[in-house]
Amino acid sequence: MNTTRGTLIVIGGREDKTDGRRILTEVARRAGRGTLTVATVASEESEQAWEDYRRTFTELGVRRVEHLALDARDDEDEAVRQARLRRAKVVFFTGGDQLRITAKFGGTTLCERVRELYQRGGVIAGTSSGASVMSDTMLVSGTGDESHRVRDGLHMAPGLGLISGVLIDQHFAERGRIGRLIAAVAHNPRLLGLGIDEDTAVVIERDTRFHVLGTGAVYVIDARGVTDSNVADGEAGQIVSVFGLTLHVLREGNRFDLSARVPRAA
Amino acid sequence: MNTTRGTLIVIGGREDKTDGRRILTEVARRAGRGTLTVATVASEESEQAWEDYRRTFTELGVRRVEHLALDARDDEDEAVRQARLRRAKVVFFTGGDQLRITAKFGGTTLCERVRELYQRGGVIAGTSSGASVMSDTMLVSGTGDESHRVRDGLHMAPGLGLISGVLIDQHFAERGRIGRLIAAVAHNPRLLGLGIDEDTAVVIERDTRFHVLGTGAVYVIDARGVTDSNVADGEAGQIVSVFGLTLHVLREGNRFDLSARVPRAA
Repeated sequence: MNTTRGTLIVIGGREDKTDGRRILTEVARRAGRGTLTVATVASEESEQAWEDYRRTFTELGVRRVEHLALDARDDEDEAVRQARLRRAKVVFFTGGDQLRITAKFGGTTLCERVRELYQRGGVIAGTSSGASVMSDTMLVSGTGDESHRVRDGLHMAPGLGLISGVLIDQHFAERGRIGRLIAAVAHNPRLLGLGIDEDTAVVIERDTRFHVLGTGAVYVIDARGVTDSNVADGEAGQIVSVFGLTLHVLREGNRFDLSARVPRAA
Repeated sequence: MNTTRGTLIVIGGREDKTDGRRILTEVARRAGRGTLTVATVASEESEQAWEDYRRTFTELGVRRVEHLALDARDDEDEAVRQARLRRAKVVFFTGGDQLRITAKFGGTTLCERVRELYQRGGVIAGTSSGASVMSDTMLVSGTGDESHRVRDGLHMAPGLGLISGVLIDQHFAERGRIGRLIAAVAHNPRLLGLGIDEDTAVVIERDTRFHVLGTGAVYVIDARGVTDSNVADGEAGQIVSVFGLTLHVLREGNRFDLSARVPRAA
């Protein structure tokens, strides 16, 4: 385990921006006197997202809030952007489309700077799509409010690779996504499924443990004990069957040990 | 275990009535040459439900399809209704509101005839609300697509008591109901949660085992191994947390042993 890794704040979308702002307050607190960079690369309405978060984080006391968009402004050159990102203490990925983040931002030098920042102990936060991209393999799409079928309708892709061994899903209870996360982890029980409700976050420290923050629940789906499943052998279109999943439902303050796969009450 | 008990066909709602009609064909097959009684006591639009199912079951070859409504027709007296129900081989409860079934039909002599029929080895089928009512305790309401909170928004009530030890929920994946069923079984892990998708049924034989029929999935939630939960101690309004649930997702043909709580592939 690489103990030099930093902290991930993985948010299930629609975090409170006006009242208690519990989650964003924690993100702001982590920036301290340093720079918080808002990365709007997931969004087509990049300027609006930037403006909203800039105002919120400024209200929450962050001194330096900077913007990382896909397209540089005319007055910036690449070296300046990289230098600015190198100074960041927290990078916050806004929501939108996770494929925009990975297909357009993945593999760039700026993206490598984000990964280095995390390796050096920095904080990477992300909400909604910005949450899904953090793992090695990410969930891109798959319908909610239905049970899933073999080799049908579940789209996964390589993520930013900040954390291994987990698959992250967001807007979890609100969009009825447990079917798709069960199907996803059944593809490879090595991965632990983390389903995060809206206005809820997991704060993952050094790849090894997390605690829950916010007003919803976090569902942890552990498929390592599965005794039977038809994901590999079933005919395409058959309902995915999986026997022997372990499921934990966590609330604010609960902790989870990612190595032992064991939850702990507050 | 009372080995004289009959068969329950518990349907998650919206079963196919026009194409393959897999589930209703099975209900019709169980009637054989006997009488199939359609009980529309859950529905305020009793006549329409009766008309739809009368036509369907007649098309499926059932010779005698009779109607059991809350209000007797003028030309029927109670003794006639009871005698007719005593002749039934299958009673099919349509959907609507489970509280209408229990509050208006529960405790009546006609309801006792249904329970006797089951004890004598008859077949009781029910869809949607007609499915929920079969157990000792039934789920009445509780929102979907959200995680549940301690002592909040989950309504349970006494059911028809045909089967013990389970809690049944329907329209399961379609209405994102896993949160409410998790909360419900956490109230008492003695009960096994059965979440049944639309156009999907469990056929329970003699209280001891079932198999799955239809195009969706059945979710079995076993809380007996739960290591921690805040259902009893948590403050009202807190998110329900539950550690160590076992979850099985079953498809058509899969079987489940209710005594051992073990699933088996087809």
